[in-house]
Amino acid sequence: MEVVSTNRSHGGVQGVYRHSSAETGTEMTFSVFVPDHAPGQKLPVLWYLSGLTCTHANVTEKGEYRAACAQHGVIFVAPDTSPRGEGVPDDEAYDFGQGAGFYVDAAQQPWAQHFRMRAYVEAELPAIVAARFPADMERQGITGHSMGGHGALTVALRNPGRFRSVSAFSPIVSPLNCPWGEKAMTGYIGEDRSAWREYDACALIEDGARLPALLVDQGSADGFLESQLKTQLLVETCEKAGQSATIRMQEGYDHSYYFISTFMPEHVDWHATHLKG
Amino acid sequence: MEVVSTNRSHGGVQGVYRHSSAETGTEMTFSVFVPDHAPGQKLPVLWYLSGLTCTHANVTEKGEYRAACAQHGVIFVAPDTSPRGEGVPDDEAYDFGQGAGFYVDAAQQPWAQHFRMRAYVEAELPAIVAARFPADMERQGITGHSMGGHGALTVALRNPGRFRSVSAFSPIVSPLNCPWGEKAMTGYIGEDRSAWREYDACALIEDGARLPALLVDQGSADGFLESQLKTQLLVETCEKAGQSATIRMQEGYDHSYYFISTFMPEHVDWHATHLKG
Repeated sequence: MEVVSTNRSHGGVQGVYRHSSAETGTEMTFSVFVPDHAPGQKLPVLWYLSGLTCTHANVTEKGEYRAACAQHGVIFVAPDTSPRGEGVPDDEAYDFGQGAGFYVDAAQQPWAQHFRMRAYVEAELPAIVAARFPADMERQGITGHSMGGHGALTVALRNPGRFRSVSAFSPIVSPLNCPWGEKAMTGYIGEDRSAWREYDACALIEDGARLPALLVDQGSADGFLESQLKTQLLVETCEKAGQSATIRMQEGYDHSYYFISTFMPEHVDWHATHLKG
Repeated sequence: MEVVSTNRSHGGVQGVYRHSSAETGTEMTFSVFVPDHAPGQKLPVLWYLSGLTCTHANVTEKGEYRAACAQHGVIFVAPDTSPRGEGVPDDEAYDFGQGAGFYVDAAQQPWAQHFRMRAYVEAELPAIVAARFPADMERQGITGHSMGGHGALTVALRNPGRFRSVSAFSPIVSPLNCPWGEKAMTGYIGEDRSAWREYDACALIEDGARLPALLVDQGSADGFLESQLKTQLLVETCEKAGQSATIRMQEGYDHSYYFISTFMPEHVDWHATHLKG
């Protein structure tokens, strides 16, 4: 694991790291913020999965999570959104290929070899975080934005007991029911829509999976709300399934980091209450 | 004045605006954050002058000022660091020409026509802010980073009574005594070093100018501290002149926005206490 950079920030260390991923077959870059702590102390971990077109850098620079993470003693991990580089297939669209891994293990060609972001964020990167950082893997929470909100919800739903708290900012709640999802799932997974269900938060809940604690914030002025995000589908699915959830519409807020950074400290606070002790 | 973008953020509106500047003879872009407020209410203004290579965008995206500004009801204005564009002279170095206006009115060719950042930030932009935003120009503070810390200090020292509070992050405290300053002043102002004194915070204090309230934060791990910033010169100048000042060395912090964003909320709080009522 190569240290790309470390900067002292908000009473902790913001690092950026690079390693050779066995899952993606590429170099992968991720960021980790570690608050100051006593020698030998293990800290809870909050995962953040990013949205379309993003790398680790967007939330690391614009997310405004460090003050709250330092206050609560929470490690914050931000992976990339896909494999990248020469030799990795790509698509010229912003919503498919590099920067748009959708946190799936691709089954279709030419994607299957490198696009293994599910295995990467579910297994390979957690093992690295556990081994290399003062992380208490018994106390994990997960969040994310848009495509990464979809990632956070589906990773948590498929791994019961792993996360104590799950939140999302403007998540894609059902790839089965939106153009971004249909394009990505068709391309990465294939035409059989039943195979998409393990990558669809609403379908996973319908099929019986549950979350321990769920908080969602969605901006009412988000241009993707009606066409892609469809928050109401998650509201209805949770109600029908008896999944407790706090799903909030935030008046006037859009899809940008100006929205995310506004509510990030509240999400970190909320996760921290679930990750204590 | 053209509205480039507005985004709801932290209980206010983060805007980016563009206008034709009479001083620089170019289009100039700046950002303004306006917290929610009662109709007709005027809010105090905090100016932020940016460092070398920056535009308005760096602090707007990475500065983490909005939460504190919203809490205190303070407008935050971030100008660009120089004129830009085709027809504007430039230099291939990062520390001279476009992105490096040093908040001076250039006297040397080919810079004199467009590089009028002193007049721009002292007069033209304040008139626009006063006319177009709910700004109480009787309650202004100013801060900045590095070259912009130099800008904040010198603008305030030359305009007694205008600012109630002045702060800086890792400022260049004496262009007369560092390579960045010597290069910029020689290039923009000319060989006569006595003409540089109105652009040198230490010289202005030595020559009798005073600040109402001064707060400076400087990272101890800042790679430019010894060679360029020389905080100790400001400490000594203030002591000798009887200028009250709080100048703090922050252990382990560097020159980046990871440092600035850490102490930004404290600076906004400090300005707000001076700007109340």
